[in-house]
Amino acid sequence: MAEGVVGGDRRALARAITLVESRRGEDRSAATALLDALLPETGGAARIGISGAPGAGKSTFIEAFGLHLIGQGHQLAVLAVDPSSPRSGGSILGDKTRMEELSRHPAAFVRPSPSGGALGGVARRTREALLVCEAAGFDTVLVETVGVGQSETEVDAMVDAFVLLVAPGGGDELQGIKRGITELADIVVVTKADGDLLAPARHVAAEYRRALQLLHRKHQEWEPTVVTCSSVTGEGIDDVVETLTQHREAITATGTLERRRGHQALDALWAEVRDSLLDRFRNEPAVAARLAALEQDVLAGRVSAAAAAAELLA
Amino acid sequence: MAEGVVGGDRRALARAITLVESRRGEDRSAATALLDALLPETGGAARIGISGAPGAGKSTFIEAFGLHLIGQGHQLAVLAVDPSSPRSGGSILGDKTRMEELSRHPAAFVRPSPSGGALGGVARRTREALLVCEAAGFDTVLVETVGVGQSETEVDAMVDAFVLLVAPGGGDELQGIKRGITELADIVVVTKADGDLLAPARHVAAEYRRALQLLHRKHQEWEPTVVTCSSVTGEGIDDVVETLTQHREAITATGTLERRRGHQALDALWAEVRDSLLDRFRNEPAVAARLAALEQDVLAGRVSAAAAAAELLA
Repeated sequence: MAEGVVGGDRRALARAITLVESRRGEDRSAATALLDALLPETGGAARIGISGAPGAGKSTFIEAFGLHLIGQGHQLAVLAVDPSSPRSGGSILGDKTRMEELSRHPAAFVRPSPSGGALGGVARRTREALLVCEAAGFDTVLVETVGVGQSETEVDAMVDAFVLLVAPGGGDELQGIKRGITELADIVVVTKADGDLLAPARHVAAEYRRALQLLHRKHQEWEPTVVTCSSVTGEGIDDVVETLTQHREAITATGTLERRRGHQALDALWAEVRDSLLDRFRNEPAVAARLAALEQDVLAGRVSAAAAAAELLA
Repeated sequence: MAEGVVGGDRRALARAITLVESRRGEDRSAATALLDALLPETGGAARIGISGAPGAGKSTFIEAFGLHLIGQGHQLAVLAVDPSSPRSGGSILGDKTRMEELSRHPAAFVRPSPSGGALGGVARRTREALLVCEAAGFDTVLVETVGVGQSETEVDAMVDAFVLLVAPGGGDELQGIKRGITELADIVVVTKADGDLLAPARHVAAEYRRALQLLHRKHQEWEPTVVTCSSVTGEGIDDVVETLTQHREAITATGTLERRRGHQALDALWAEVRDSLLDRFRNEPAVAARLAALEQDVLAGRVSAAAAAAELLA
């Protein structure tokens, strides 16, 4: 399977991603062996996170942005971390038809989001799918997520650059700031900057520039940048590409990129260990038998957290 | 010891806190037994977190605020979570002489911060010290921390209300916003609002009011409030007390206070379990023998996170 992935076999790629995303315990050791075999071939892609609330124009942006990159000779993979899937069982990002032209293009690979499982676990598997895509030769991997809950943080922990999409109009332009996710953004892209929305888009861009002054800076060497673009006219798409290139050069020159990736891998190791230990702990029959009642006792203040922890650990 | 604590014996109280803060493994079961014995007597205090960068005037504020509360008949305990102690070994908050009059007052108990250990662990012990103080009859417990790193989040996870202190002047007034901790604040107190700094203090208060509009709101029922005060003239201290009372009434009426405390206890339980599992894991001889080399391999990209986790878990 590793040979097939590296050799550019699309069916091997799809099967490899299915394997790393599998929630069946018995698949994990094969997945681990696969990832280890692919490791020397990984690391070569620009890893880009893309987020935005529903209505921000994510699908049309990714289609326009992706086709632009392909036009420049790039090979593009699109993955998704979908926080809705654990709850609903369905996937709001899984619909391939959203990016029709991109999905059909031979230089692109669009993967529906995995479903089921806790968000942290889903994200960790997406990180592994990203490595598989790199080994398959894609030089750009987009990881898409919806602006809900913790998913942006999870995506930020696996990419080099984080792009936040914001649409003008509707009065909710500053939602991203309110929800605290703008702090993650290396680049804010105001979409739909065409026709009647051109002026509002410029206004929103100015607001974000002001707001970004107030926020904590992620990297010392990079000042978060606001760009406007239209996925319909294509205007500004090249600015997004150019800004991402500048960001990449800035964090590469200072060594931030390499350090960041090393620490992301280390964090992934410990997240895996921690979740696995907690899973085994919860499923230990003696623990499982007492857990629900003890949690209720702690919630209601009948047992101290320390005593409950001690009892479970004993 | 539990009887002594509940009976108001100060030496028993100090010994009890030393016990729960102890990092010696053999003390933990006694600490757990003590906490369980005290549990019925806990829950009665207003738990208030106080943070601010060095120079924000924390000590003088706590002295003025604390003496004001005592003047109203309250019994006050002051604890500290000191993020500097794990690294330096010393404690920047441990200096009792900072709050000279308060420390000597019979209605107050000022406890230097514990030193050593990881921040999460120190904070968990401080949460337990808070419970001991409640059992000892203090109706108000202040938990103080310096505005560095994750310590505010740790403190927020153990209190009912979070107060952020900001001083005017120096041009760093908006630091709190930049560092993202303003989102935690239920009340922002602009200190040193007297003499030449009165006008700048009002200006900073207006800036914070504007900034708070942009930030995510912690509780639906409470709009973060900005108050100015002077620890020297005493002006505005009663506004802080009054605002805290309003906050308490708001979150009590909606049931948020009770829910919040239940979830804080549950989080403390799982943090204890998780850290204890990870500690035991790291100290397992077979794991310890491989750990450093594997972490280096993952950092350098020679081994995948998945393979390293699998090897350690095996």
